[in-house]
Amino acid sequence: MLGRAFRILNSFSVDRPRMTQSDLSRRTGLPLPTVHRLCIQLADNGALERAADGSYEIGVRLWEIGALAPRAHGLRQVAMPYLEDLYEATHENVQLIVREGLEALYIERLSARGAVAVVGRAGGRLPLHASSGGLVLLAHGGTELLGEVLAAGLERFTPNTITTEHRLRSTLDQIRRKGFIVCREHLNIGTLAVAAPVFRAGGEVAASISVVVAASADPTPLIPALRAAARGVSRGLA
Amino acid sequence: MLGRAFRILNSFSVDRPRMTQSDLSRRTGLPLPTVHRLCIQLADNGALERAADGSYEIGVRLWEIGALAPRAHGLRQVAMPYLEDLYEATHENVQLIVREGLEALYIERLSARGAVAVVGRAGGRLPLHASSGGLVLLAHGGTELLGEVLAAGLERFTPNTITTEHRLRSTLDQIRRKGFIVCREHLNIGTLAVAAPVFRAGGEVAASISVVVAASADPTPLIPALRAAARGVSRGLA
Repeated sequence: MLGRAFRILNSFSVDRPRMTQSDLSRRTGLPLPTVHRLCIQLADNGALERAADGSYEIGVRLWEIGALAPRAHGLRQVAMPYLEDLYEATHENVQLIVREGLEALYIERLSARGAVAVVGRAGGRLPLHASSGGLVLLAHGGTELLGEVLAAGLERFTPNTITTEHRLRSTLDQIRRKGFIVCREHLNIGTLAVAAPVFRAGGEVAASISVVVAASADPTPLIPALRAAARGVSRGLA
Repeated sequence: MLGRAFRILNSFSVDRPRMTQSDLSRRTGLPLPTVHRLCIQLADNGALERAADGSYEIGVRLWEIGALAPRAHGLRQVAMPYLEDLYEATHENVQLIVREGLEALYIERLSARGAVAVVGRAGGRLPLHASSGGLVLLAHGGTELLGEVLAAGLERFTPNTITTEHRLRSTLDQIRRKGFIVCREHLNIGTLAVAAPVFRAGGEVAASISVVVAASADPTPLIPALRAAARGVSRGLA
């Protein structure tokens, strides 16, 4: 029952913010009467709202509950001043990233007009092995997580994507040793990303911060400001 | 089943972001084995996450789903530049407010350091009849909503709170006629709020924007900037 309700909620996306019961039935594979019943119950609980045209959208109450997630909204509150400082210092794309399952998820992104275009938006997802922020989370995520990522396969996005276990392990070692990573065109042609980890008081990784610039840029001057911001957020979490 | 799952999710709040299964059992009145089973299922769906100490918190996945709510995150995206302009122009507390059931809910608040202190935070709630933003939503919310608000009773918060049907109806008429409202100490002693409506293309009210200042301030110079911002967001939604 709960699983089917979440199949309905999980059908919504940035590209599909409103759906009719027929759309939901098609996407979930659930029969229309089941969808009908679940939509009414989800709406009773504020998780869905019915628009004027009869279609459904995610409800404001679910947004309100979601805003209580310490790893998302809570982290963002702590990180925001440091992200803004980093943004002011670089005028590039600055991103705050956490892990959700086997993916990395943007919690916040500050982008300058005129900065290199980055695919995705807050709430978007990135592969752990092919993004700078994801690699940082993976480097500090433990052996079990690494095993799951390897088992899922290292999909290639560009000629520079890390697709072998050997190269992945040596990159993760390097991140742990140096405290940051530079990825040139691992996920998208034309962009270069640098990332550094944010830690909790207990020493576990909480998030990563990345700065995305044009692939032709020299990342060296970005790194001290990035690392200072990541340390600032870590201190803020402690 | 779904209702019980939402009783668990609804137990979390700004003041209680993490709870053990015993806390949840106490707050929901559900037996511990039921709470245990529901927590596992909610965690399987990413709605809850288990912290290192075994307590539960709202999960990042629920934040991600909630960010799809058009009336919250979607509206905020459109409104943000106008709210920032209004904030720059006034350097006071600027708030974006929508209705959720019989209450008004902050979607965003920009506050200057040194501006008058306002109770609450993004995700906080206000009574419709006793807040400037709530009164604006009520003025354009239809007769059914007004009937429900009257039936629920007009609670008094200060000597200036509107507590009679007659005064409420004449205030709502005035909002519809003038396009804004000034509330001096309706909800809190020491603060004055002005609010104006944001409309959808179809003409229904989508939100309200309010500016909160010290009760001793002259609100007159705020009103043109407030109304321009509200019109700007309405245009952005169309």
